Amino acid sequence: MTALTDLLAFQRQTEALSSVAERLGWDQETVMPRGATEQRAEEMAAMEEVLHDRRTDPRIGEWLDAADPQTDADRRAIQLIARDYSRSSRIPARLATELARLTSLAQGIWAEARAKDAPEDFLPTLDQVLMLKREEAAALADNGNLYDALLDDYEPGMTGAAISSLFDAMRPRLVALREEVLGSERQPAALTGHFPQETQLRLARACATAFGYDWTRGRMDIAVHPFSSGRWQDSRITTRVVETDPFNCVYSTIHEVGHSGYEQGIDPDYAFTPLGRGVSMGVHESQSRIYENQMGRGRAFTGWLFSRMSDAFDGLNITDPDAFFATVNRVTPGFIRTEADEVQYNLHIMLRFDLERDLISGRLDTSDLVEAWNARFLKDFGVAVDRPANGVLQDVHWAVGLFGYFPTYALGNVYAGCLNRALRAAVPDLDEALARGDATPGTEWLRENLQRHGGLMPPSDLIEAASGGPVTPEPLLDYLEDKFGRIYGL
Amino acid sequence: MTALTDLLAFQRQTEALSSVAERLGWDQETVMPRGATEQRAEEMAAMEEVLHDRRTDPRIGEWLDAADPQTDADRRAIQLIARDYSRSSRIPARLATELARLTSLAQGIWAEARAKDAPEDFLPTLDQVLMLKREEAAALADNGNLYDALLDDYEPGMTGAAISSLFDAMRPRLVALREEVLGSERQPAALTGHFPQETQLRLARACATAFGYDWTRGRMDIAVHPFSSGRWQDSRITTRVVETDPFNCVYSTIHEVGHSGYEQGIDPDYAFTPLGRGVSMGVHESQSRIYENQMGRGRAFTGWLFSRMSDAFDGLNITDPDAFFATVNRVTPGFIRTEADEVQYNLHIMLRFDLERDLISGRLDTSDLVEAWNARFLKDFGVAVDRPANGVLQDVHWAVGLFGYFPTYALGNVYAGCLNRALRAAVPDLDEALARGDATPGTEWLRENLQRHGGLMPPSDLIEAASGGPVTPEPLLDYLEDKFGRIYGL
Repeated sequence: MTALTDLLAFQRQTEALSSVAERLGWDQETVMPRGATEQRAEEMAAMEEVLHDRRTDPRIGEWLDAADPQTDADRRAIQLIARDYSRSSRIPARLATELARLTSLAQGIWAEARAKDAPEDFLPTLDQVLMLKREEAAALADNGNLYDALLDDYEPGMTGAAISSLFDAMRPRLVALREEVLGSERQPAALTGHFPQETQLRLARACATAFGYDWTRGRMDIAVHPFSSGRWQDSRITTRVVETDPFNCVYSTIHEVGHSGYEQGIDPDYAFTPLGRGVSMGVHESQSRIYENQMGRGRAFTGWLFSRMSDAFDGLNITDPDAFFATVNRVTPGFIRTEADEVQYNLHIMLRFDLERDLISGRLDTSDLVEAWNARFLKDFGVAVDRPANGVLQDVHWAVGLFGYFPTYALGNVYAGCLNRALRAAVPDLDEALARGDATPGTEWLRENLQRHGGLMPPSDLIEAASGGPVTPEPLLDYLEDKFGRIYGL
Repeated sequence: MTALTDLLAFQRQTEALSSVAERLGWDQETVMPRGATEQRAEEMAAMEEVLHDRRTDPRIGEWLDAADPQTDADRRAIQLIARDYSRSSRIPARLATELARLTSLAQGIWAEARAKDAPEDFLPTLDQVLMLKREEAAALADNGNLYDALLDDYEPGMTGAAISSLFDAMRPRLVALREEVLGSERQPAALTGHFPQETQLRLARACATAFGYDWTRGRMDIAVHPFSSGRWQDSRITTRVVETDPFNCVYSTIHEVGHSGYEQGIDPDYAFTPLGRGVSMGVHESQSRIYENQMGRGRAFTGWLFSRMSDAFDGLNITDPDAFFATVNRVTPGFIRTEADEVQYNLHIMLRFDLERDLISGRLDTSDLVEAWNARFLKDFGVAVDRPANGVLQDVHWAVGLFGYFPTYALGNVYAGCLNRALRAAVPDLDEALARGDATPGTEWLRENLQRHGGLMPPSDLIEAASGGPVTPEPLLDYLEDKFGRIYGL
């Protein structure tokens, strides 16, 4: 019992310190002065070294050997700590510190290169990041697959091969749907006009509230690339504002509320334990996606949104709620993943998945990355990338070392498809509430069946338990074909 | 050489981690969600434990013994590390952690009690803070004076007895000046009207720029109790806005720019060494005070401010710059230290100094604190405190354990008096620049003679070197009598 108590007390402090490091990351991307990059890199590196020392502390091994857990929660906590200990112990302290320092710097370099549309300013740094990530992957993989070793950090138990099969199964139906939709004679109108920042932010706050975001345990700020950050009592969201496109702000916000709402919904008894956070990136994304798409972009909620936006902006060029629903879900060729519609989104992910697997395996060199990106984009989307900020420079992920992260977005969509089918069966009158701008019945079902469990179950077990069946892409594909079939009259 | 290199590398990381903890404190007082207090207390305690472990790491003792510094900067760094090591080693880890956790919580409890005007909600917590601080003082004092042991943390080398003598020497001239001023027939008019928050903040930003604040290495936010935070590339200021009193915002801002400007002005070679921060609270306060008062509240700068404010607010009830200068420096009975004029400010400090010495020595109990405060305030200021938020609850300091800190404010005023005399002699045309809203010649002189040195010299040596003579209260008192004599026609 003492070994377990000591282990959990030690872990509690590690969780608190890791939460501090995450808060520092939030600060860097929202409020930090632009001249503070070197200082912050040094601070992040120091935090990372402290965390690495703790995660590899040999006492953990002794405590794990001696611990005798009595509850499911303790057994699972032990399992997660053991997993983290094993992974961390394989990564040399020097490498962990170097990665923290470099990726902190790289983030600033990426942001400047993106603003200047100058990939040549960023690629040498990306090359350094990639070298370190390959070194990390080699340390973790133990002669296994490098990419799988990285992916496992974001989606435990998942492999590149499994994702590749899943994507192969999804691609034909997605491509067919995309072609039908883009070829349809019925094309929704675009929303046009000027939408002032302050009004958009008020609307975004109303949407966050509609989806159950607890403002006493969070806040909203502006970031270049929206993200959510933090746990339990302090889970913050960010959004961005484009004054010609209010949907960007509204749906970024609802998406991040999905992430933060998950964290806010975890059983508070799990706070500062390994169970006190979302269990995987894919499951996290399932929450952001079901909030954003299956609920937020459905006919019911967009009816409410139509009325709120018509009032807030003194009228819109779209004048009835059915047309507005179609406009919200409008499918057009576009360069930016985060702005992509539900039909094309997963195709953006497939592109990144293939390129990053090649980068990690060494089949693709960073010096050829721009060309590879542009060629693949032209092939998959039929359009030439017009400038690097709309191509290879659009996402921060690789700059900060998140190789293996992208596919979890598509997994999240697949999980959301499964969850949505179960949710609709369990809460048949959900749309009536959504039509009033109230997502509470959906949030409550998700909280009860998924969110509150935190890290208690492995990702696929959790999704299967919540959705009442195995994880397959069919519910997502069926949902997409039904929804877009109706909108586009297919 | 290796011992020194190892020691400085280790210290570098400690400085970085301490900078993270300070950033977390900033977050708590500016942007943190109000429901996050427990989580933050846990995070702060974890950081404090890491820092305490590092500051008491036995390797420091070995490195210090073996180090052979060759430069003045290295010798001084060694001295400061040794001092910190000796102090930290006397404080048990449990106490340091407990203090961090409790003061983080106490800050929230204080803020709520202040908002509700309910000292009874706060005093039991203050009592716990006080008990821990007395324990800390006993550990540090080694049978010496408890209060001196705490004071030494903020103003190394200073004692309660020395401050008591200094205050005794100052009090008669301050009291006499106050009585003459309040009894004068010439009384400046008050500024009246409604001054919108956004306009005040724009004005505050212009003032910060006028005093040389480097916005690429800082930012400004709103806080209940304005403060500055951070070093080198990331030194942030806060301000507050009262829509009936724009001077509150303007002069809080200039004050904090004094603090942050000091940090921004330190030689960047000292970054992440013990020399890379302001050398003491008193010296820090000398910078904020000389910016705020001797420069910011002088006739020259207020002339510029008059013109800017008249434009920004579409006219004022004060219509000429001489009258405006008098209004800025208006002396009236008031409860709040941070809003006090230069004549009465130090009397507020003397009250706190005496009460906190009695609290630490045990001569005063927290259960008698409200009564003691109110009685002393009536005696010193001739007015009865109307409500606790205007009395014992007005300052955050005791809640966060800052016993021994208050007198450094008055020391800062004394230092600022000495520095101002030297500055005016060295830069005779300073007022010409200030009249154009440009404090550059003053900032440059301070940067060259004081700020850039960081922690290189002990506080009194630094002030003496910069001002060219011993530290005495006469320059400050002469300056006050001259300035207020002219305004009030004494």
